[in-house]
Amino acid sequence: MNSRLVNYHEGDTTLQGFFASASDSAAPGVLICHAWGGQGDFEDGIARTLAELGYSALAGDVYGEGIRGSTPEENAALMQPLLDDRALLLRRLTAGIDCLRAQPEVDATRVAVIGFCFGGLCALDVARSGADVGGVVSFHGLLGSPAAPSGPVSARVLALHGWDDPLAPPEDALSFASEMTAAGADWQLHAYGGIVHAFTNPNANDAENGMLYSEVAASRAFEAMRDFLAEVFTD
Amino acid sequence: MNSRLVNYHEGDTTLQGFFASASDSAAPGVLICHAWGGQGDFEDGIARTLAELGYSALAGDVYGEGIRGSTPEENAALMQPLLDDRALLLRRLTAGIDCLRAQPEVDATRVAVIGFCFGGLCALDVARSGADVGGVVSFHGLLGSPAAPSGPVSARVLALHGWDDPLAPPEDALSFASEMTAAGADWQLHAYGGIVHAFTNPNANDAENGMLYSEVAASRAFEAMRDFLAEVFTD
Repeated sequence: MNSRLVNYHEGDTTLQGFFASASDSAAPGVLICHAWGGQGDFEDGIARTLAELGYSALAGDVYGEGIRGSTPEENAALMQPLLDDRALLLRRLTAGIDCLRAQPEVDATRVAVIGFCFGGLCALDVARSGADVGGVVSFHGLLGSPAAPSGPVSARVLALHGWDDPLAPPEDALSFASEMTAAGADWQLHAYGGIVHAFTNPNANDAENGMLYSEVAASRAFEAMRDFLAEVFTD
Repeated sequence: MNSRLVNYHEGDTTLQGFFASASDSAAPGVLICHAWGGQGDFEDGIARTLAELGYSALAGDVYGEGIRGSTPEENAALMQPLLDDRALLLRRLTAGIDCLRAQPEVDATRVAVIGFCFGGLCALDVARSGADVGGVVSFHGLLGSPAAPSGPVSARVLALHGWDDPLAPPEDALSFASEMTAAGADWQLHAYGGIVHAFTNPNANDAENGMLYSEVAASRAFEAMRDFLAEVFTD
């Protein structure tokens, strides 16, 4: 497996991602959008997993080179300015897609975007922007509060969702369905009963606040992602 | 592939199913619950597909040997008495499970139930009964109106659902989620945007009444079923 750190830029901000690919030949590319803590070990591991599946993956960065949170308070302080400026967030995501496409191990015509928690919202924002990517996957992403009513959505959209996620309650799932339908999206939402936020993250162990790892839900979600990416990249 | 018609009984009623298996050795068994028209070519095809996947499958019958509808009115007239007597429906379903388990090509300890439209409700009713089956899958099934509040549900439950299904509107999806959560079920619901009722049936072409085939949704649903059965029968 090839892997390396990659620096890229949005305006005057340097962003640093982690890139992994299984071989030197051009493969479909996947941008990974990090959770609120910033790009880190979890996202690096997802990039390696995707490389093992035969894809080329960039664990992107929307905070800036080396900028990471280490407590919930720090994470929230890093995330909030980008929730408050979704246009800036989209520019940083777009920079990541452009960086991904520019890697020699990536087939620039076949690109998808996935993300976790805050990164799920990021993946959905890419779709909402009408970006020319094949598909997006949100893992326990924030489903409500789009930046603006979505325009036509060309990317296929898959939301993998814990039904008891306190950060995305049933009313947000309903509004997501309405929003995506109105935008003409080819969308799916997989709801997992009894599952809460952050269910793919083995370090999530705060049941009281509705953030808890679930091995079975994580397994189902990754299998759904594999099926979805295979579909997106085959057509 | 082995296939044969199989007669079995519930009380004084003779039921006739279609059985298919890939080999003579005991494999996990799947009962298929038919749509409102009764057991027919569509269900036979599903049985063959499951046999090709390595399972042994019985396309069961809850109407009676040779009793099939040929118009929506006839179908409704056949279905309604069983919707009005869910205990009778469950006895006929249980007879199908027992018949499946009794086939020599079936590993009686590993059984699942799937169903389409009305048959989706049937599959869910099996789960609601607390039956000792590994999993149930509903394809565009009726989600609301359980016979009674579900007791503990031991089967894993997967509902594959067109979000615009007029026979199972969003409020039914929400009540299904609440019902299954209250019953302690390990449940999933996969919602497909822009998809209506009967989406797996290539003969469904009544868009005006919300019954329409979708090749892409059918493909996704069958892939989800394959993943689910593999999980259920592996554990």
